[in-house]
Amino acid sequence: MRATLMYGAGDVRVGTVPDPAIQDRTDAIVRVVRTCVCGTDLHPYRNRTADEPATTMGHEFLGTVEDIGPDVTGLATGDLVVASFAYQDNTCDFCRDGVQTSCRHGGFFDAAQAEYVRVPQAAGTLVKLPVGADSALLPSLLTLADVYGTGYHAAVRGRVSPQTTVTVIGDGAVGLLAVLSAKQLGAERIILMGRHKTRADLGREFGATDVVAERGAEGIERVRELTGGDGTHTVLEAVGYREAYDQAVGVVRVGGVISRVGVPQYDEAPVGFPSLFGPNITLTGGPAPVRAYIDRLLPAILDGTADPGKVFDHTLSLDEIPDGYLAMDRRESIKVLVTP
Amino acid sequence: MRATLMYGAGDVRVGTVPDPAIQDRTDAIVRVVRTCVCGTDLHPYRNRTADEPATTMGHEFLGTVEDIGPDVTGLATGDLVVASFAYQDNTCDFCRDGVQTSCRHGGFFDAAQAEYVRVPQAAGTLVKLPVGADSALLPSLLTLADVYGTGYHAAVRGRVSPQTTVTVIGDGAVGLLAVLSAKQLGAERIILMGRHKTRADLGREFGATDVVAERGAEGIERVRELTGGDGTHTVLEAVGYREAYDQAVGVVRVGGVISRVGVPQYDEAPVGFPSLFGPNITLTGGPAPVRAYIDRLLPAILDGTADPGKVFDHTLSLDEIPDGYLAMDRRESIKVLVTP
Repeated sequence: MRATLMYGAGDVRVGTVPDPAIQDRTDAIVRVVRTCVCGTDLHPYRNRTADEPATTMGHEFLGTVEDIGPDVTGLATGDLVVASFAYQDNTCDFCRDGVQTSCRHGGFFDAAQAEYVRVPQAAGTLVKLPVGADSALLPSLLTLADVYGTGYHAAVRGRVSPQTTVTVIGDGAVGLLAVLSAKQLGAERIILMGRHKTRADLGREFGATDVVAERGAEGIERVRELTGGDGTHTVLEAVGYREAYDQAVGVVRVGGVISRVGVPQYDEAPVGFPSLFGPNITLTGGPAPVRAYIDRLLPAILDGTADPGKVFDHTLSLDEIPDGYLAMDRRESIKVLVTP
Repeated sequence: MRATLMYGAGDVRVGTVPDPAIQDRTDAIVRVVRTCVCGTDLHPYRNRTADEPATTMGHEFLGTVEDIGPDVTGLATGDLVVASFAYQDNTCDFCRDGVQTSCRHGGFFDAAQAEYVRVPQAAGTLVKLPVGADSALLPSLLTLADVYGTGYHAAVRGRVSPQTTVTVIGDGAVGLLAVLSAKQLGAERIILMGRHKTRADLGREFGATDVVAERGAEGIERVRELTGGDGTHTVLEAVGYREAYDQAVGVVRVGGVISRVGVPQYDEAPVGFPSLFGPNITLTGGPAPVRAYIDRLLPAILDGTADPGKVFDHTLSLDEIPDGYLAMDRRESIKVLVTP
């Protein structure tokens, strides 16, 4: 089958790999109907060295069940399903604690920008969608695989409520859907930190009340000005760079929460008296257990109340996916939808 | 009046300073009946350089109201009161959020190892005690000024409940009272990490089910063994050294909480994928808003259910306080009670 392969920084190509097949009794094979490129795919696209062997790419997909292992319950061939970007049994104690990304039998997809995907722990991973494969809702439903659930995780961990003011750092798909999630959880004041006009416009449509284009010390100053000098109760950090961490520390209010869903591209950071400890700041977040949120987020997509699929501003075929990486890397596209 | 003065590392003396007097309309003057030496007092005792000017010491006290400013409500001269180690108006928005240590009109006491203390924001800071100045409960009541409320803050921020397993790092007064607090909040499994037998014994009395004497990688290994390899849902870190942070990261369970109340003696620490982000760990804590907890903790002291005053294993006069510092520095004493 055709699949996306990363060879080195800036070098992504579509090539041929073996078709996946059932390996374990709990597997399923899904024919991909929609997949997409993620902001985290840009890290290897920017930093990979060419001397590593080529790797498959992609962790977001929805599609139809083509084959199922004998121990898979609740699914049938032909079902249209969405997968969470991490697979999980959804029954172990870590999953029951709501940390499905740490499932005792789990892992992460890494080959979904392709025609077919092998899905381990299919019963715990695939969620049947009550629409046809030609539904206009497919882009929004695909966001349940990662970016919508990830933004929602940030907001849930950030304890967003009608009582909390919110800053969202980052105007990528996750940041924008963190705005939407904060709005859905009742926040009335949502400040989006991002520099790109078209993204800011979508952020406002999703619920941002203010947009701060400045970064660093100037951006912090601006958010402080907007909040009477105090910062916001919650900061949802959807970038992952150290600068974003420092920005979060700079704009969080006394007693507040910094909730990170941008995968940290750093290891150490300030956690001492001046940054977190003195003002009793909570630092939380991590890879989103999106499986935990799909059932909660699905109804608003189905009834048209929420349209998270608006983060997709380009649609390409699988063969065109290198152009999609390039467009996202140049920030000409928020997120690229791919139709194999 | 006589007061404790720190001159340099290992050099603490009792000297004479001016009697405090009302300065602001919201002040009170308290005659100290009991004060004590805190683990945090040992940081300057160990690290101070002699070229800095001598400073007064102490932030924990209970005593009788001697004088009150015209705007102080709810108090009368002669009242026996306990103060929180931070003063606060207890009415501003930060106080109402439960972060009294960041009160907009607050600050920290720094001269309570003395005969008298000036108390700013007296109405929000002093809590009247329903016992006489000769009560046998005074040691336990004095723990409300800091160490008991601080241990309790760790447990509250650590979301301790009957469903959570707990590790407490540190067998000082705060660590031991974090054990007591975790027990009061319903934890059934409490692992105390500490090396000193007498402290471990008191920890068991307060509710510890296991004691781990090992430190570092060996200590982490031991806690993991005790918990089926998984660590505990909550880690209450009552030390403040970087080693304790690393230990906390090593023993916390997937999706768990590290709640710090030991004042960090470091600035940067790992917060990236392997430590906090990947397993969705929450890092929380800070200087305890003990004022928020006094009303909640008082009844169990008064009815004898809780006896946090057991952390005081030495009682000295104010003039003997240099011996108290030395005993605590040598870990010959858990905590020294002082009767001016």
